[in-house]
Amino acid sequence: MADATATMTMDKGLDHTIIGESTKSFIDGQKGVLEYVGIDIDSLARESTFEETTFLLWNDRLPDADELAAFTNRIRSQYDLPDGMWDALRGLPHDAPPMHVLQTMVAMLAAYDADCDVQSREAEESKAIRILAATPAIIANFDRLRRGLDIVRPSADDTMAESFLRMLNDETPGTATARALDVCLILHADHGINASTFATMVAIGTESDMYSAITAAIGTLRGPLHGGANERVMRMLQGIDGLDAIEDFVLGRLSRKEKVPGFGHRVYKAIDPRATYLKTFAESIATETSNLELFKMSRKIEEIMESQVGAKGIHPNVDFYSATTYFSMGLAIDLFTPLFAMSRNAGWAAHAMERLEDNRLIRPRCQYTGPHGVEYRVDT
Amino acid sequence: MADATATMTMDKGLDHTIIGESTKSFIDGQKGVLEYVGIDIDSLARESTFEETTFLLWNDRLPDADELAAFTNRIRSQYDLPDGMWDALRGLPHDAPPMHVLQTMVAMLAAYDADCDVQSREAEESKAIRILAATPAIIANFDRLRRGLDIVRPSADDTMAESFLRMLNDETPGTATARALDVCLILHADHGINASTFATMVAIGTESDMYSAITAAIGTLRGPLHGGANERVMRMLQGIDGLDAIEDFVLGRLSRKEKVPGFGHRVYKAIDPRATYLKTFAESIATETSNLELFKMSRKIEEIMESQVGAKGIHPNVDFYSATTYFSMGLAIDLFTPLFAMSRNAGWAAHAMERLEDNRLIRPRCQYTGPHGVEYRVDT
Repeated sequence: MADATATMTMDKGLDHTIIGESTKSFIDGQKGVLEYVGIDIDSLARESTFEETTFLLWNDRLPDADELAAFTNRIRSQYDLPDGMWDALRGLPHDAPPMHVLQTMVAMLAAYDADCDVQSREAEESKAIRILAATPAIIANFDRLRRGLDIVRPSADDTMAESFLRMLNDETPGTATARALDVCLILHADHGINASTFATMVAIGTESDMYSAITAAIGTLRGPLHGGANERVMRMLQGIDGLDAIEDFVLGRLSRKEKVPGFGHRVYKAIDPRATYLKTFAESIATETSNLELFKMSRKIEEIMESQVGAKGIHPNVDFYSATTYFSMGLAIDLFTPLFAMSRNAGWAAHAMERLEDNRLIRPRCQYTGPHGVEYRVDT
Repeated sequence: MADATATMTMDKGLDHTIIGESTKSFIDGQKGVLEYVGIDIDSLARESTFEETTFLLWNDRLPDADELAAFTNRIRSQYDLPDGMWDALRGLPHDAPPMHVLQTMVAMLAAYDADCDVQSREAEESKAIRILAATPAIIANFDRLRRGLDIVRPSADDTMAESFLRMLNDETPGTATARALDVCLILHADHGINASTFATMVAIGTESDMYSAITAAIGTLRGPLHGGANERVMRMLQGIDGLDAIEDFVLGRLSRKEKVPGFGHRVYKAIDPRATYLKTFAESIATETSNLELFKMSRKIEEIMESQVGAKGIHPNVDFYSATTYFSMGLAIDLFTPLFAMSRNAGWAAHAMERLEDNRLIRPRCQYTGPHGVEYRVDT
């Protein structure tokens, strides 16, 4: 409105706006700190599991052993999809972008939830568990279907990480591989208010439900400015013609002042705290999955980058290691962002439930710059 | 981040924030003005069509006759769904909430679009046309399926309004009814930056695509604080036991200082400019559809409200008339919000395309209020 906007502030990217309070994650980019509810991300990566970390983000404390067992069982009881959803997944075109497949199937979960319209903290948490639990089956089996393989249904004996890998490859995953995926899921579970997390808050602000909110978040994460960083790392690695070509490639990029995907971070000026522990997995996964060439290539890029720009505070970030981890696991590159979503479900739901406790409709204004008083007239 | 947020402003609902510039719609609530690209909404309602209004919102000018014909043909060529989507629609549970069905099917449209990942103004407009054109078939036929009826496929000879009604009822719609729906579609096509329109901007800010953005918007519109107003009008009318019970009902609500759904508006202090022309249809649709009882009831509510609170600036709003219009057409009440989405597709796409011309990642911060330095320790 003409009058009202005079006293308002233009902030096109909301760079100067705090949208509310949160107890979920704390980031100090200067010091290289990321905490979930006060616990250092490196401790969680080393000692926790994705399921336990999800409980932490949803309840602002770690569970005791009984609580964790109950929470894990709730998730596992929702691993499988309704028959109609398996049919729908089978019916999708094999060349569909996996992020759109995931978005479609998460929206469809609502159609199969008789309690979809129930509104309470408990109800939203149940919806979040259904989404969290169903995502591995959706991603892994869409990939199987497009490879011409049959569906493998989930086993309630597996962790989420194990379940995803078992469905994807129809075999028991290696110990290092399953643990590395679990660590990746922990590391990507939350990261303050990013664009996709904000999307859940915009949706939930109208008192919409968890399915709607996470579907909105998936559509937002899909954009290359948000979810695609580790895909770019892998496409870079694939574009380099072997170990001997690396030095020229990296030095060439640096001399042309081009970015090297996977190095440096908009927020972290110190070492990305999510990268430290994941790095230690690189060799064991590469060995377990017979991908030593990729391991050597990425290690060499690191060495050259460290010697060239390490002193400037440019270090490998979490995307660098998650890219090579996912690729070693045999994941198609266009599954990297869906796997990001599989992890971030935990953070999206945490922020949506937190917001519902003190909810506000989110509705900025725009500055109207068009004409006024134009006559309706059509040229014939 | 601890330091950065010190210089930032807390604005939980973005009530004080302008998110950008726009040439799409202008609202002056004090004077009761709504313009699309400078043209008064009442002129558009009386003289334009939904298809022409959509062109206006997407191109910032009215089309000439040739342009309108070409634009209309583009839309009509996309009315029908791919076979796989008809199968998917048939497979959905009949008790699914229609807004979640619409969200699922719009996300699925992306899976069937081979050009889904192409990024350009032209490509996004093509995606917007596919969404706009497919929505009537999705809503009308999901309603048929849950009524146990066969699918009726769209005819390219129909306008969008005619096509929706013909599919819904499997018969040629009455002239007044089809025109009233067209007017409703014009009136709801855009309304500044509301929560769902903002959701498209958050999604598109990451350079995501039109399918993702409109899927996010549908999930946001679904919330009762946003899309449900005319559903509440109809549920109120259904809760009144006939014409003779109206006076007591209305006076009772007013004496208890309860709101009467469909009267007054958060933005419009003068008469809602979208209500004026729609009101003139009430009697002709009621006659055409043999719903005179409903017409008389709503007219009586209006009379009592006008005599009681008209002087305070509380008048019937667009929801009051669109509710009775939709109900007279035989629409189930839970289709009112999907029909809102069918219209608002035009505005969502307009704002998404406008934003892409000067795009910004939208990423506010939160104020972290949780603990720090908590030790990882599990009670066993």
